Amino acid sequence: MKDAHVPPKTSAGYFFEDYRIGQVIRHAAPRTIGSGERALYHALYPMRHALYSSDAFAQACGLPAAPMDDLLAFHVVFGKTVPDVSLNARANLGYAEGRWRRPVWPGDTLRAESEVIGLKRNSNGRTGIVWVRSRGLNQRDETVLDYVRWVMVKTRDANAPAPETVIPDLSPALAPGDLHIPDGLDFGAYDTALAGEPHRLSDYAVGEVIDHVDGVTIEEAEHMMATRAWQNTSKTHFDGTMRDDGKRLIYGGHVISMARALSFNGLANAQMIVGLNGGAHANPCFAGDTIRAWSEVLETAPTDRPGIGAIRLRLVATTDGSVGEPKDADGAYRPGILLDLDYWALMPS
Amino acid sequence: MKDAHVPPKTSAGYFFEDYRIGQVIRHAAPRTIGSGERALYHALYPMRHALYSSDAFAQACGLPAAPMDDLLAFHVVFGKTVPDVSLNARANLGYAEGRWRRPVWPGDTLRAESEVIGLKRNSNGRTGIVWVRSRGLNQRDETVLDYVRWVMVKTRDANAPAPETVIPDLSPALAPGDLHIPDGLDFGAYDTALAGEPHRLSDYAVGEVIDHVDGVTIEEAEHMMATRAWQNTSKTHFDGTMRDDGKRLIYGGHVISMARALSFNGLANAQMIVGLNGGAHANPCFAGDTIRAWSEVLETAPTDRPGIGAIRLRLVATTDGSVGEPKDADGAYRPGILLDLDYWALMPS
Amino acid sequence: MKDAHVPPKTSAGYFFEDYRIGQVIRHAAPRTIGSGERALYHALYPMRHALYSSDAFAQACGLPAAPMDDLLAFHVVFGKTVPDVSLNARANLGYAEGRWRRPVWPGDTLRAESEVIGLKRNSNGRTGIVWVRSRGLNQRDETVLDYVRWVMVKTRDANAPAPETVIPDLSPALAPGDLHIPDGLDFGAYDTALAGEPHRLSDYAVGEVIDHVDGVTIEEAEHMMATRAWQNTSKTHFDGTMRDDGKRLIYGGHVISMARALSFNGLANAQMIVGLNGGAHANPCFAGDTIRAWSEVLETAPTDRPGIGAIRLRLVATTDGSVGEPKDADGAYRPGILLDLDYWALMPS
Repeated sequence: MKDAHVPPKTSAGYFFEDYRIGQVIRHAAPRTIGSGERALYHALYPMRHALYSSDAFAQACGLPAAPMDDLLAFHVVFGKTVPDVSLNARANLGYAEGRWRRPVWPGDTLRAESEVIGLKRNSNGRTGIVWVRSRGLNQRDETVLDYVRWVMVKTRDANAPAPETVIPDLSPALAPGDLHIPDGLDFGAYDTALAGEPHRLSDYAVGEVIDHVDGVTIEEAEHMMATRAWQNTSKTHFDGTMRDDGKRLIYGGHVISMARALSFNGLANAQMIVGLNGGAHANPCFAGDTIRAWSEVLETAPTDRPGIGAIRLRLVATTDGSVGEPKDADGAYRPGILLDLDYWALMPS
Repeated sequence: MKDAHVPPKTSAGYFFEDYRIGQVIRHAAPRTIGSGERALYHALYPMRHALYSSDAFAQACGLPAAPMDDLLAFHVVFGKTVPDVSLNARANLGYAEGRWRRPVWPGDTLRAESEVIGLKRNSNGRTGIVWVRSRGLNQRDETVLDYVRWVMVKTRDANAPAPETVIPDLSPALAPGDLHIPDGLDFGAYDTALAGEPHRLSDYAVGEVIDHVDGVTIEEAEHMMATRAWQNTSKTHFDGTMRDDGKRLIYGGHVISMARALSFNGLANAQMIVGLNGGAHANPCFAGDTIRAWSEVLETAPTDRPGIGAIRLRLVATTDGSVGEPKDADGAYRPGILLDLDYWALMPS
Repeated sequence: MKDAHVPPKTSAGYFFEDYRIGQVIRHAAPRTIGSGERALYHALYPMRHALYSSDAFAQACGLPAAPMDDLLAFHVVFGKTVPDVSLNARANLGYAEGRWRRPVWPGDTLRAESEVIGLKRNSNGRTGIVWVRSRGLNQRDETVLDYVRWVMVKTRDANAPAPETVIPDLSPALAPGDLHIPDGLDFGAYDTALAGEPHRLSDYAVGEVIDHVDGVTIEEAEHMMATRAWQNTSKTHFDGTMRDDGKRLIYGGHVISMARALSFNGLANAQMIVGLNGGAHANPCFAGDTIRAWSEVLETAPTDRPGIGAIRLRLVATTDGSVGEPKDADGAYRPGILLDLDYWALMPS
C-alpha cells in the first residue's frame, strides 16, 4: 500500500476551542425508528407502562397509537450529539430544561441539532465547560424534544486565549405550565386495571418515597446493544481494552432507562415523561452491578387539561439497594448511588 | 424527604387467601406485538419453521401473512399473569388444556385474564395450590389462546381457615377434535423443499424418537432479554444477588422455546403448535447450560381439514445430551433433564 | 417409548459426493425481513451509514425508503445455504463475484438457491472443494444478490471414485461496469452533514489507508443473536461444549459486519455495498476479542450514473489493533488478523 498524502478522514471530535456562542451544530446519522426499536427497548428494559406497550391502550387515551418510549427518543437524540459534543468530554456534568414537545411515532425519522449557549474555560486551561441546547427534530422539522446539557471538554491548547465566559441562566426545574400535553391525550377512560395500579395523582403525597423493590443485574451484551441502538459512539462503552478488568463503562442513559422501567412498580400510572429538570450520574455503572431504584414525589400539579395531572419525581438508582439520602455528610454521592434524576411525568388525576 | 403517611404503592402480589373460585383477574400491561418482537424471537431462538419465517410461505398456505410464533404469543400471555398468579409462587406445578384458538398477527394487542378454577390448601398451612385458566385476548376481545396452569402459592397466614378444596377435572390430553385449525390454512401447495424437510405426517410412527442433535449454550443476556420482552417480572430471572453464584434462574419458557426451535431438525413440518397437553420444568436452567432436545411421537391423527394432520409430541430438553427415559427408577426426573412437554402440532398429512 | 423402524428424520447434510456440476439446490427457510431485523442489526453493529439509518435521507437520495442493510441481506442468504453447503465443511475458502443486484426493502421475503459450478476432490480423498454460486431471491423471484463461495467439504467415502475436476473461471475483482446502481439512486442533493463526513470520492486517493480507530469487544450473546437472526445453523457458533474453554467460534459474517460498521469513521459516505470481490477469514474470532478495522483504497471509478462513484476498498479487521500489512514474510496472515475483505461501495463523487 502506498503512503498517500491526503487529509485524514476520521474526525477527532470537537475540542473546547472549536465551540462558539450561538454556533449551531447539525449532527449526523438521522434515524428512522419504529416497531423494531420499540421491541428492542422493551427487551432491554422491563418496560410495562401501558401507554407505550399497547396501541389499544393508547387509542383509549386519545392517541393514534402507542408513541415511542420517551427515553428511547431521548437516547436517539442524545446519541447523535455524542460525536460533536462529548467525544472529547471528561465528564457529563448536568441536564436542565428538558422538554418532550410532541410524541415520536413509529416510522418517524429523528435528527438532532445543538446550539452552544455557554462556555467557561477552566483555570487550568486544559478543560472548559460547554453548555449546549440540543434538540431532536422529526422528518417534518418539528422539535420533538430539547434539553440543555453541559460537559467538561478538553482544550486542544492549554495556552490559547480563553473565550469570554458565558454561563446560561437555567431553571432549576420546569414549572408545570411549561409542560407540553400531547394533542388528544385524554385520561377520561383510563383503565387502571390494565395499567397495573389503582393510584392516581391524588393518591401521591409530596415527600412520599417509593421503593421499587426489584433488582436487575446488568450484562455487557445488553448495554452495548442499547447504546449502539442509539448510535452513541463513545469508545468507553464498547472497548474492553480501555480498562484492566475488560469491563466497559456503561452509558448513563442505560441506567436512566433501567431505573425508569423499574419504577413501574409503584408508579405504573406515571405514564408520559414530559420534563427533565436535572440529573446527575453519581457513579459509573459496570456489568455485574445490580440496579435498584426508588422515587420521591417532589411536587404534584394539575395541568390545563382536565383529568391529566403532573407529578415531579426524583428517581434514584443504586447498586447497594439503599433507599434514602443518596449523599454523605459532605454532600458527595455515596459509592452505591448511580443516578439522581429529577423529572416530570403525566398521570391521571 | 418527608416521612409521608400514605398507603404503599407497590404491590406484594396475591397470596393464597386472596383467591376465590370463580374470581376473574384482569392482568395488566396489554402489549402490541409485531415485526420487532418477531425479529427478536428469531434472534433469541433458532426458529426456522417456514410458516412463521416467511410471509410468502404463509400466503402459499392460505394465511394472510406469517402469524406471530405460537410460543411468543404464549409467553406474552403468560408474562402478564405473573404479577397476579406467580409472584408469591413456590413452584409452577403444571399445565393442561392449552389451546391456540386463532393466530396472532403482527400489530395485534394482547391482554390476559385468569379465572380461578381450583384451590387446595396444603396441610402445613403455609402454601396452597391455585389452578387458573388463563386466556389471552386480542384487541377485538377474541380469545387467541387459553390454558390451565397450577402453582403452589404462599399463604399470608398459616393459621387462617382453609377454603373448601376444589380440584378441577382436567383432561390428560386434548383430543384431536379439540384442536382449532386456523381459518384458511391449506397445505395443498405445501413446498417441502422450502420448509426444509420432506417428511409428512404419514412418515412419522407413534413411538418414534427423534434426536434433534444440536446444542445451544445459554447466556444471561439472552434469557433476560427474552423474559423482559414477555414482560415477565419474576425477580429470580433478573436479580443476580439472589444466589451466591450470581446466576439468575432462567424462565422455563425460555427452555420451551429453545427446545421447540431445536426440534426443527427432524420436525420442520410440525408447523403450528395448537395444543398444550401438559408440561413439567424438571430442573432449573442456568446460564452456561447447553440445551439439547429430543422428541417422541405420541400420537398422529387426521383433522377435519383435508391435507392437515395433527401430531402429538413429547419434547424433552436436557443439559446432559441424553436421549431416552428422562426419569429414574423412582419416577423422579434425572438431574440432566430440563423440560418434559406434551403438545399437539399441525403437519401436512 | 418404542424402537420404531422408520427412516431417520434429521439431515446429515451434504457430503462431497452429493454434489454434481450444474446441480441447483433450493435452500430452506424463506425469511421475511423488516424493521425488526433492521433494529436488531443496528443494535448488534454500530451502523451509522445514513442511507440505511433514515428513510428521510434515503428518500432525499431518490429511494422510496431506507433499504435493508446490504450485509444483512447477504447474511440472510448465506445463512440459508449453510445446511446444504457448509454443514460438513472443514473450511470456508473464499468468495468471489458477489453482486448486490437490487435493494432489499422492509417486508421483502428472501429465499436462496445455489448452483454447483466447481468440484475438485483433494488428493487424500477425505475432502474436496465445492464451488457454488448462491443467489438470494425476493418474493417476486428477482435476484437481489449473488456470489460465489467455495468450501472444503468432507467426503463420505475416501475410496469412492473422484468426479471430473472442474475449476470455475472467476474474476479476481468485478469491474466498475459490472456494478448495479439501484434504480432512482441520486446523490444530487446528498447532505454530507447528515451523512457525517465531508469526504467525497474525489477526496480519496488510491493507496490511502484509513484507521477506523474504534474497538468493540465481542460478547457471546451478541454473535449468537446475530447468527440465529440469519438462521445460520452451524453448530460451532452455538454449542459451547465443542471447545474446552466453552467459547463458541464466531460466524465470520459477524466480523464482516462489525468491521464494516466501524469503517463509518472515515468512510461514512461509502454508502452502498454493491460488489464483493473476495475475502478471507484469516483467523477465528472468539468472545472477548476486541475488533478494530482499517481500510485501504484500492481503486476509484466513475459509474454511468452522474454524481455516483465507485470505491473499491480493502477492509481488514484485527484483534491486535495493527494497521498495515496483515501477512507475514511467508504470506500467511498474522495471528492478530481476523478478516481481509475486498469490496466495492457507491459514494457521492
